[in-house]
Amino acid sequence: MQITASQIATLINGTVEGDASVVIKAAGKIESAASGEISFLANPKYLNFIYDTKASVVIVSNDLVFDKPLPCAIIRHPMPYYGFCLVLDAYFNPHQTRVGIHPSAVVDEAASIGTDVYIGANAVVEAGAVIGNKAQIYPNVFVGKQAHIGSNTILYAGVNVYSDCIVGNNCIIHAGTAIGSDGFGFAPTPDGSYAKIPQIGNVIIEDNVETGANCCIDRATMGSTILRKGVKLDNMVQIAHNAEVGENTVIAGLSGVAGSAKVGKGCVIGAQVGIVGHITIADGTQIGGQSGIPKSIKEPNQQFIGSPAMPIKEAFKSQVLQRNLPALEQRVRELEKIIKELREL
Amino acid sequence: MQITASQIATLINGTVEGDASVVIKAAGKIESAASGEISFLANPKYLNFIYDTKASVVIVSNDLVFDKPLPCAIIRHPMPYYGFCLVLDAYFNPHQTRVGIHPSAVVDEAASIGTDVYIGANAVVEAGAVIGNKAQIYPNVFVGKQAHIGSNTILYAGVNVYSDCIVGNNCIIHAGTAIGSDGFGFAPTPDGSYAKIPQIGNVIIEDNVETGANCCIDRATMGSTILRKGVKLDNMVQIAHNAEVGENTVIAGLSGVAGSAKVGKGCVIGAQVGIVGHITIADGTQIGGQSGIPKSIKEPNQQFIGSPAMPIKEAFKSQVLQRNLPALEQRVRELEKIIKELREL
Amino acid sequence: MQITASQIATLINGTVEGDASVVIKAAGKIESAASGEISFLANPKYLNFIYDTKASVVIVSNDLVFDKPLPCAIIRHPMPYYGFCLVLDAYFNPHQTRVGIHPSAVVDEAASIGTDVYIGANAVVEAGAVIGNKAQIYPNVFVGKQAHIGSNTILYAGVNVYSDCIVGNNCIIHAGTAIGSDGFGFAPTPDGSYAKIPQIGNVIIEDNVETGANCCIDRATMGSTILRKGVKLDNMVQIAHNAEVGENTVIAGLSGVAGSAKVGKGCVIGAQVGIVGHITIADGTQIGGQSGIPKSIKEPNQQFIGSPAMPIKEAFKSQVLQRNLPALEQRVRELEKIIKELREL
Repeated sequence: MQITASQIATLINGTVEGDASVVIKAAGKIESAASGEISFLANPKYLNFIYDTKASVVIVSNDLVFDKPLPCAIIRHPMPYYGFCLVLDAYFNPHQTRVGIHPSAVVDEAASIGTDVYIGANAVVEAGAVIGNKAQIYPNVFVGKQAHIGSNTILYAGVNVYSDCIVGNNCIIHAGTAIGSDGFGFAPTPDGSYAKIPQIGNVIIEDNVETGANCCIDRATMGSTILRKGVKLDNMVQIAHNAEVGENTVIAGLSGVAGSAKVGKGCVIGAQVGIVGHITIADGTQIGGQSGIPKSIKEPNQQFIGSPAMPIKEAFKSQVLQRNLPALEQRVRELEKIIKELREL
Repeated sequence: MQITASQIATLINGTVEGDASVVIKAAGKIESAASGEISFLANPKYLNFIYDTKASVVIVSNDLVFDKPLPCAIIRHPMPYYGFCLVLDAYFNPHQTRVGIHPSAVVDEAASIGTDVYIGANAVVEAGAVIGNKAQIYPNVFVGKQAHIGSNTILYAGVNVYSDCIVGNNCIIHAGTAIGSDGFGFAPTPDGSYAKIPQIGNVIIEDNVETGANCCIDRATMGSTILRKGVKLDNMVQIAHNAEVGENTVIAGLSGVAGSAKVGKGCVIGAQVGIVGHITIADGTQIGGQSGIPKSIKEPNQQFIGSPAMPIKEAFKSQVLQRNLPALEQRVRELEKIIKELREL
Repeated sequence: MQITASQIATLINGTVEGDASVVIKAAGKIESAASGEISFLANPKYLNFIYDTKASVVIVSNDLVFDKPLPCAIIRHPMPYYGFCLVLDAYFNPHQTRVGIHPSAVVDEAASIGTDVYIGANAVVEAGAVIGNKAQIYPNVFVGKQAHIGSNTILYAGVNVYSDCIVGNNCIIHAGTAIGSDGFGFAPTPDGSYAKIPQIGNVIIEDNVETGANCCIDRATMGSTILRKGVKLDNMVQIAHNAEVGENTVIAGLSGVAGSAKVGKGCVIGAQVGIVGHITIADGTQIGGQSGIPKSIKEPNQQFIGSPAMPIKEAFKSQVLQRNLPALEQRVRELEKIIKELREL
């Protein structure tokens, strides 16, 4: 991939200062980029890096002022990091769009396949499944009966979508993620064993959702487990049956949302967090890593941490006091000694 | 799927009251079911929902008495929820039984395949493997050499069963689960690196076990890692080498049982729990989510929570005291002030 | 597999005492081995087991002295457990080396395939990928464009290696592990949704690394996510974008290393541990299970536990004090009572 500063400026609607004909072959960080690479400068803290950068082009904000000459061309843009992301996506994205159905893919005649679709080697698409236009179905993916995969959606290698589940448009599902496995539903029987409760619902993933690798989104017992539009899940996140995750909520790796829990919009949930079943988390809630949320959070936009979780200020106060427990014990010991002396007077 | 109330009653050995000829097309919850759907009423708390339900048929207990006319037919059954599960399983289960070996499946000539087996597209069954009658091997599954898969057992898409491992009858293994990966066994060497300890044992999964998606059940160093009959694992549960999980024990998502640990029968273990290696957990133990179990639990039927875990009563007391630490510190400060005054008298 | 004590002694460069012609068919633990099996005795604590063992051959240390006659042949070796591992690996390893490309594998003409390679059924190797000599690519594995797989490296069934990622020589990657999934990188936008930051870097796994099943090693945003040589990961470990794990560090199951964190050499990290992003962990650090590491650890070879983690001695002291909180509260209550009496005098 080779491209000039001038072409890049056109792509992102920016303006070049310096050599607009310089050729760009790769992208890198401002402090480590080599000649022929493009970089960006968004945080003024890093301003000094630009005077020594080896990058050939750096994207900077419209109003940034330099008090020394620059060793590189610049492209002015109102949001330099966003402009840089556009460049990465257009020229350097390792996941270039693919088209065509590989002869080894097993696509049922009764599946409905859109235009400009990619279905990779050894992928399996069953009867009644619907694959939207330009969808990218990588090798060894399984799409079960009557499952729907939206337009422009990418299912990376080894993703398994069970029957009847729905993935929206412009979604990205990373390798090995299971969508629509049975919810964990069992009824105890008198002999101590468990009877399986059939899980006849499905999973609905709305548009613009991304999940990491090896996630598990269980189908609902009845009805749907739902990821609302714009949800972002990191790797190995579990969403249990009948749970719902609100619009634009992000959940970091190895976290779990238990059955029928309802997480609000715009929440930010750290890694290894557990949210118990049948509770509600208010919009805009922020939850620190490794927290356990045992009951509903009703007030929006609050921060929690700990297991069981507390409001973040209380939690930090409590942590300090715990760390100071030896000192507190010492103070009590001192008081006991004094009291003993006072009483012996 | 269309079926009458009368046919359903015959299936579950119940009795219809009302229109036995009404046609049922789907199933739903009593509060949200639509016309043409079947529902159930098991918890008397929900009794009032039945007077307004749109469901066409509701399964209720034999002795339930109504003091108003009903808008639906009912089917009497001694255990309404269980009866409802039977109906779901028979008519609305999205995982209908499949038969036949897909031409793209790679089944070694030296594998032994039972009757009425399903082996899906691009599944791989190696030499010496044994597949029981009516087993359901979904697409992209791998069954290694000499592995045994029992009758009626379902391996969903992308399951990987390593060589020599044994899965019993009537088991369900969800997508992406690994059975028989090497145990995590290494011996330190003088140069700081680790030498691999070959893991030559296997995994034995007894009958009626269900595991969630993307679980990892490691093979034993020597001997077997064992899931006893009726065990139920949620998604992403790790069972390490040489561990054993007792009959009818259930373990929720993202939990781990370390090497050579022995978990008893009928235990209920929450999500994100860690059980250290080489310990024993008594039968009927209940462990709360996110707990860490650092040593053996000898008395059966006790409840634990916390990391490190404590008996549940102590844990809750300790949580209250921790939350009250600021108050305790305040009381000590008050005492110090008084003592100071007393001494200055 | 049948082999004599004499042949085994030759293999491991040991010396037989007793019947060198005895035939060995399997391996087992000294306390449970059967006739025809080989075992080992490394820990003097288990010395007494040898006098009753049914094993036909036991590997023992050069200087071990017996005060009773033995029921078995022995092989003397300077490191009995290591010698035993060599025997297991040579004769009883369930993962015997495979050779040949299965006709159902889809190997792009523009991939470079070494000598004596195994590529299993329905595996997919894309254009520009490089597969080293004697590499073992199991069924249903995906190796993306320009990915490199080193010599003697094993990718078990269902492993997914994204494009441009590099796996070194003599590595073992267990089933379902994802290498090179996108890092969890998003930039908030004014409307509350998130814009994806393209992840254009890769993953570099150096030689002699082993990962468990269903792990997730994310590709870097720019540059590389790196596992240095000799790293050992258990099952379901997440290594986030741009993180680096130092030489010979071991990490137990369900742990996560967040973005851009740098873990030192020779660390031992327990299960379900979380390490936050952008911090540094000193060489030789040991971290207990379920710990959370919120900030850099600068002094090497220290031990930590807890969430947030503390040095292990402090943590245990704190645990004891927490457990004794009820007693401390009782002492304060007692003091309050006495003070009240004193003041009323």
